[in-house]
Amino acid sequence: MNPLRYDWMRLEEVAAELFTRVGVSDHHAHTVAQSLVHADLRGIESHGLSRLPIYMKRIEAGVVQLDQEPHIAMQNGATALVDGNNHLGAVVGKHALELATSLARQTGIGFVGVRHSNHFGTCSFYAERSIEQGQILLVLSNAPASMAPTGGIGPFFGTNPIAVGIPAGQEAPFLLDMATSVVARGKIALAAKKGEKIPVDWAIDQDGTPTNDPKLALLGSLLPIGGAKGYGLAMFIDILCGLLTGAASGPGVQSLYENWTQPQDIGHVFLTIDIEHFWPLPVFQRRMDEYIREIKAVPKAEGASEILIPGEIERRKMMDQKAQGVCLAPGIARELEQTCADYGVDWGRARVGS
Amino acid sequence: MNPLRYDWMRLEEVAAELFTRVGVSDHHAHTVAQSLVHADLRGIESHGLSRLPIYMKRIEAGVVQLDQEPHIAMQNGATALVDGNNHLGAVVGKHALELATSLARQTGIGFVGVRHSNHFGTCSFYAERSIEQGQILLVLSNAPASMAPTGGIGPFFGTNPIAVGIPAGQEAPFLLDMATSVVARGKIALAAKKGEKIPVDWAIDQDGTPTNDPKLALLGSLLPIGGAKGYGLAMFIDILCGLLTGAASGPGVQSLYENWTQPQDIGHVFLTIDIEHFWPLPVFQRRMDEYIREIKAVPKAEGASEILIPGEIERRKMMDQKAQGVCLAPGIARELEQTCADYGVDWGRARVGS
Ligand SMILES: NC(=O)c1ccc[n+]([C@@H]2O[C@H](COP(=O)([O-])OP(=O)(O)OC[C@H]3O[C@@H](n4cnc5c(N)ncnc54)[C@H](O)[C@@H]3O)[C@@H](O)[C@H]2O)c1
Ligand SMILES: NC(=O)c1ccc[n+]([C@@H]2O[C@H](COP(=O)([O-])OP(=O)(O)OC[C@H]3O[C@@H](n4cnc5c(N)ncnc54)[C@H](O)[C@@H]3O)[C@@H](O)[C@H]2O)c1
Repeated sequence: MNPLRYDWMRLEEVAAELFTRVGVSDHHAHTVAQSLVHADLRGIESHGLSRLPIYMKRIEAGVVQLDQEPHIAMQNGATALVDGNNHLGAVVGKHALELATSLARQTGIGFVGVRHSNHFGTCSFYAERSIEQGQILLVLSNAPASMAPTGGIGPFFGTNPIAVGIPAGQEAPFLLDMATSVVARGKIALAAKKGEKIPVDWAIDQDGTPTNDPKLALLGSLLPIGGAKGYGLAMFIDILCGLLTGAASGPGVQSLYENWTQPQDIGHVFLTIDIEHFWPLPVFQRRMDEYIREIKAVPKAEGASEILIPGEIERRKMMDQKAQGVCLAPGIARELEQTCADYGVDWGRARVGS
Repeated sequence: MNPLRYDWMRLEEVAAELFTRVGVSDHHAHTVAQSLVHADLRGIESHGLSRLPIYMKRIEAGVVQLDQEPHIAMQNGATALVDGNNHLGAVVGKHALELATSLARQTGIGFVGVRHSNHFGTCSFYAERSIEQGQILLVLSNAPASMAPTGGIGPFFGTNPIAVGIPAGQEAPFLLDMATSVVARGKIALAAKKGEKIPVDWAIDQDGTPTNDPKLALLGSLLPIGGAKGYGLAMFIDILCGLLTGAASGPGVQSLYENWTQPQDIGHVFLTIDIEHFWPLPVFQRRMDEYIREIKAVPKAEGASEILIPGEIERRKMMDQKAQGVCLAPGIARELEQTCADYGVDWGRARVGS
């Protein structure tokens, strides 16, 4: 039996409708819905509609607030600070990105730091927008503690993601979007569920010993990519997103799931470069295409049928799922169906062919 | 017997004098000498005075040129492009950094791309300067091909380094300075010399198979940190340093050692953030100190006596070697002594106690 497929535009509609039921304005509801469905389309289920129920619950619990819009706390030259006012992360992120985009149009580069934000989904949601604007985006975010510094055994840093989007012409754009941990916590949780072992470079147990037991790993800390190098990258991201913006940092960033009294106080950074300040966009795009083709022409390792550009796997998935419908894991679909029932929203229309 | 120690200021003098003998101006000779001795002081021997002879040889061969100063090819808003005019990398880099520093003073952030440059040494040389200026620096460079894209077996990317410098107050500053490969090629060459095996995640052989034989690794390709993540980071660096600036990219970047007919045409990016645009510097420094102390207080793994901040190992080494003298490997000291003899420069004065 084929898995159930859902129409991505209908999913956006349904998700937006659900958000409006807990008081989110139409406009913002649509933004957050787009961000979640974007992740599912790209196959990043961990950051897709699976997060919708927790976003709604945090609004209802009053730990995410809707009464004040994100606002510009400081603007000076090519830089700005946005205060998210504890609004939904994607709403805050989109606002900050738009400011960074317009700063870069004026000065070639824009740097927008963000404080008092919340979980803002996948970074690629923002990078995709910058690519459409003919800009390069570097986006950073801190996240709740799950990763130990090198030499330490307790979680201190989040899986602090870094993403870079760069437009190409005919070829797929460059869209690197990565956690600074070797793998996401979700992959370890999945291994634990399936009773599988994990590679020893993924995590350490509570005593700091590398472990292949996912259960012990979940009680311990994730490991950064490249040892101390990944620790350094996660720390740099935390300093820019947390200390420079005035958001929380390190273990001061609150859990999305476990803290019901305090805002997450996440920080982000959006750094945009306007390509037209350097080259006519079509010239740059042509060079990107040539460059990408050069990479794809590198002799391949046995078993590798082609060389992929960062973001290409997810882009193909997106194109397929836009055409064929989005696959949702049965558990997630069930939870969404139940949420729709609770709020009197029509879920059935999201099924492909309905 | 203790290894021979050399006085770092005398080493700078000697190195600068050598550069003037091949036509470098006093001012520029001093810059490049500082950059090399900086690396030795920090224990990064691979980027220290061991590179002096090849820098001189390239000048004499005319593949590095001294007749034109680096110049600003474009300046617009907070961005600029510097054309290195194939001058020595550290000369070009310092010029570009100074421009980025002054851009950031005006607009909060400065982005300077560089083309037609040469090997510019360790990134920390530049990051240290920005830290002294109360600025944050992100510096990137591409480098000659030695690393394969994920799925490929031929070298395409350099070990493209990324470095970030961020000032603190009482505590050591944050100074992450890293190649995007798991290890530098030099470490593999060393293992080959010593007849030791290497971990299988360092490199692949010519057929693309991970290997623990350093000799096969040297014929193959280095591996990036974190698999496809490091490949993505190296590619992002190459696109910014190469395609955006108009420098060479991928295998178009020429070897420092093997190409005697063409310039290296390396590209760099210097991105500076002026902290005073966000916070009074002492406030930021105090927060950095608190933050660093929080990290150092994380429970330690067995065998780890303390948690170090990126750059701290090298900073301690530097302080020790400034006080006690710089250790040079006997082979390197011999080569420098010979070079001094060839050019009639007094080497003996560099010895500590001389
Ligand atoms: N908001 C948050 O707090 C937060 C925190 C961490 C991660 N995230 C998100 O989680 C998502 C997943 O992160 P991840 O690190 O698990 O991603 P991943 O490891 O699946 O992929 C990382 C990157 O590598 C690329 N890639 C993977 N294999 C490749 C190959 N063979 N060839 C070329 N490129 C390849 C991908 O396209 C992607 O750009 C991201 O969208 C990230 O933004 C969000
Ligand atoms: N110019 C070029 O073309 C080029 C190319 C590649 C590398 N490089 C230079 O080579 C040098 C070495 O690079 P590398 O990647 O081999 O460096 P490395 O692996 O020795 O160190 C990388 C970073 O990790 C930090 N670090 C290491 N162990 C740590 C620990 N236990 N705790 C905390 N921090 C720790 C270091 O301070 C450093 O900032 C750098 O200076 C780099 O700029 C230059």
